[in-house]
Amino acid sequence: MGDNLTLHTDKYQINMMYAHWKNGSANERAVFEAYFRKLPFGSGYAVAAGLERIVDYIRNLAFDDEEIAYLRTQEENYDEGFLAELRAFCFTGDLFAVPEGTVVFPNEPLVRVDARMIEAQLVETALLNFLNYQTLIATKAARIKRVAPNDRLLEFGTRRAQEADAAIWGARAAYIAGFHATSNMRAGMRFGIPTSGTHAHAWVQSHDSEEEAFRLYAETLPDHVTLLVDTYDTLKSGVPNAIKIARMLREQGKELKGIRLDSGDLAYLSKRAREMLDEAGFPDVRIVASNDLDENIIGELKAQGARIDIWGVGTQLITAFDQPALGGVYKLIAREKDGDLEPVIKISGNPEKISTPGVKDVYRIVSKETGMAVADYVCMPEEGEAVRNGEPLKLIDPLHPHRYKEIDNYEATPLLQPIFREGELVYALPELTNIQRYHEKQIVLFWPEHLRKLNPELYLVNVSRGLWEQRARLIERYHP
Amino acid sequence: MGDNLTLHTDKYQINMMYAHWKNGSANERAVFEAYFRKLPFGSGYAVAAGLERIVDYIRNLAFDDEEIAYLRTQEENYDEGFLAELRAFCFTGDLFAVPEGTVVFPNEPLVRVDARMIEAQLVETALLNFLNYQTLIATKAARIKRVAPNDRLLEFGTRRAQEADAAIWGARAAYIAGFHATSNMRAGMRFGIPTSGTHAHAWVQSHDSEEEAFRLYAETLPDHVTLLVDTYDTLKSGVPNAIKIARMLREQGKELKGIRLDSGDLAYLSKRAREMLDEAGFPDVRIVASNDLDENIIGELKAQGARIDIWGVGTQLITAFDQPALGGVYKLIAREKDGDLEPVIKISGNPEKISTPGVKDVYRIVSKETGMAVADYVCMPEEGEAVRNGEPLKLIDPLHPHRYKEIDNYEATPLLQPIFREGELVYALPELTNIQRYHEKQIVLFWPEHLRKLNPELYLVNVSRGLWEQRARLIERYHP
Repeated sequence: MGDNLTLHTDKYQINMMYAHWKNGSANERAVFEAYFRKLPFGSGYAVAAGLERIVDYIRNLAFDDEEIAYLRTQEENYDEGFLAELRAFCFTGDLFAVPEGTVVFPNEPLVRVDARMIEAQLVETALLNFLNYQTLIATKAARIKRVAPNDRLLEFGTRRAQEADAAIWGARAAYIAGFHATSNMRAGMRFGIPTSGTHAHAWVQSHDSEEEAFRLYAETLPDHVTLLVDTYDTLKSGVPNAIKIARMLREQGKELKGIRLDSGDLAYLSKRAREMLDEAGFPDVRIVASNDLDENIIGELKAQGARIDIWGVGTQLITAFDQPALGGVYKLIAREKDGDLEPVIKISGNPEKISTPGVKDVYRIVSKETGMAVADYVCMPEEGEAVRNGEPLKLIDPLHPHRYKEIDNYEATPLLQPIFREGELVYALPELTNIQRYHEKQIVLFWPEHLRKLNPELYLVNVSRGLWEQRARLIERYHP
Repeated sequence: MGDNLTLHTDKYQINMMYAHWKNGSANERAVFEAYFRKLPFGSGYAVAAGLERIVDYIRNLAFDDEEIAYLRTQEENYDEGFLAELRAFCFTGDLFAVPEGTVVFPNEPLVRVDARMIEAQLVETALLNFLNYQTLIATKAARIKRVAPNDRLLEFGTRRAQEADAAIWGARAAYIAGFHATSNMRAGMRFGIPTSGTHAHAWVQSHDSEEEAFRLYAETLPDHVTLLVDTYDTLKSGVPNAIKIARMLREQGKELKGIRLDSGDLAYLSKRAREMLDEAGFPDVRIVASNDLDENIIGELKAQGARIDIWGVGTQLITAFDQPALGGVYKLIAREKDGDLEPVIKISGNPEKISTPGVKDVYRIVSKETGMAVADYVCMPEEGEAVRNGEPLKLIDPLHPHRYKEIDNYEATPLLQPIFREGELVYALPELTNIQRYHEKQIVLFWPEHLRKLNPELYLVNVSRGLWEQRARLIERYHP
């Protein structure tokens, strides 16, 4: 199997496409929206990621002979006319999305697909697969970044990642949110992420003594030596041997770059190692720590005064261990009926799960007085609700409409960007380093209260009057 | 980028390979072992998976021009002689592994790599990446299978999976452990897993009424109709409309296959829906449930008498939500020294983390009296510890050597199989359905006490006297 991801979809998408084809609705226009309802990790915000992958996927959609042959084996016994339609299939619709690195919130559209029914249906599964995972990891990485904003952050998770794609796309998502490097060489090659690595215990074990192992490693890569000091005993053996190597390197006009601690009490060991290195005349040797780190452990270590300069973060980041799935959904919000586009609702016994019908945009409202983001505002520009900077805005809480807020001195920026227009890519995918820089600029728009790790203050995502009224009308129609 | 996974490795592996090359130890023999120390989910056992992926990876290892060009960009400034060595690189070693579907336990070797140092080092990262994830998901799936052994189990997780590879390899791992089908069409195409799917809420929303949506779907695929009944109101609208369709189909000599519940109180709704279907004369219409299911919720629903025949399991399975990483490690256990193979230890402040040196095999000891597995036995056949069926065996608890057990009337089966010999694949990869069948036979070797979901009885993995003594000797040498 090559890289063809066209059948990376749920069977029910194919069956619904078939039913639309049979019933003559395959080419009717449908608008779907991807969003999530709940933030992960108790976080106050999320960081959008996955768009580059989605773009690549959409551009390469094609049912090749292998896919068609496979579909013929299915017990549904699809009509050959349908398979011929698939053989000629390509994406001809529009797609709007929030750029990667954007700070985003629940219940606002992250991706909008406006296409023929069968196109919009096919892409749901893969689009959510990419968006959910990459947004999840970028969000986790942003939380880690927040507790160590001035330290060097390394992504070390491949061996515990959920298979190969997660390793590399997770490394990329972490980089977007401010990580500095990954250990994964393939991610480095593919995305241009800087790579980083020291050596393993096996290097030490494969020599007769730790000192010999250190010395041979230092002789091989004299400009890039970080020594793992915990194979036998960190303070009695590892650090003293590392200091010997630091002296050896200095005699050659070189400097030891760092030592790595990978077990034990990282707070205590880093402080003692720092003292030992300083006393020996090596205040610039940096201390790297690894071993099941996450934002909570790093925060605690810093609170205890740990002398760690560089953090290698693996399992907890690459799997988003404390909440390994983002529950992003993809809902039909409008469909063509008798030539017109009509808003569509999904009812649920759970009020939070009722969808908000209608084709909408989302604006970030930034106060001109403070330069800080005030709220996000979701409205229907095509229904006469375009936001004009300077005009007073009424922001309504969609679940509690008696709660609203009026503002005027603001600048409103639309978050959704056109990515595909009639099947053509109209978006210049940014360089990865520019995405990282854009993310940095996003973060500083928010008060720290919304960004803090624990019990963040709720950031408001409000809806327009038109949206709120339309939703109420449709709820009444379907739940009389 | 194509499918080349050769650089799907950590940078430190490349750096250690470089250091070995520089120091003349690149071609020395090294033996590494992959194993995990702790079972996930509080489970009493795990299910090995990932070998097919590992085999494919090893066979296709090759540093092509793109990889070499990328390595040239690295600041380590690798010697051209080293890069030439990599350009000619292929795997020439031996690899032994436990077959997929085998029930496995902590601290026993799942994979043993016996190769040139640089080969054994390169493959660590990807091997663990595949083995950890696939074993984790097969284990989770086995737990779900155990609470619903006679029901149909469907893997529905792609949209919440951690990127694309996890979706398809996770679907395969679930199938190994007894799932019946996946919704992912690409997994179906690639691995021959049966696929399954109903329709989404969007299908209902894209028609003027639920009844019309159901009717059109049933007319399209009259032999394969399972209707999603919760778009508006399960009992007031969905089930009554499904019954209308069941009647329509029966008039055509067809039968409605099922209904699907995707929200609300699944215990109550399934019982009421069952009654309504039975009363209407449709006792054979099956009830499918989905919505964040796992082994605990399924177990609870069954305890409450829910009338659910088929379970669609998504997020919780495909991400192993309650513990999304298996901590499998890959440790050097022996290395060539002066032409001989010498056992190697890794010491740790944490006694459980001290490795067990030496090249070992693992046997499953099955009592001839009961036909049930008694313990797993790890020993060194090449050091005169080959197990001869019938000869009394002394099984020692490696952490508490005063605890041992003697047995005689047993049959011992080696778990590790030769996969590669001197770089040649010598193992016939089994058909996936045969792996599933092999797994079923594995499971019945174990007393239910070891397999239960909560607080399982510990199954013993014991070591030979020779292994225990060698380990004690090496601990003493490095920790005097």
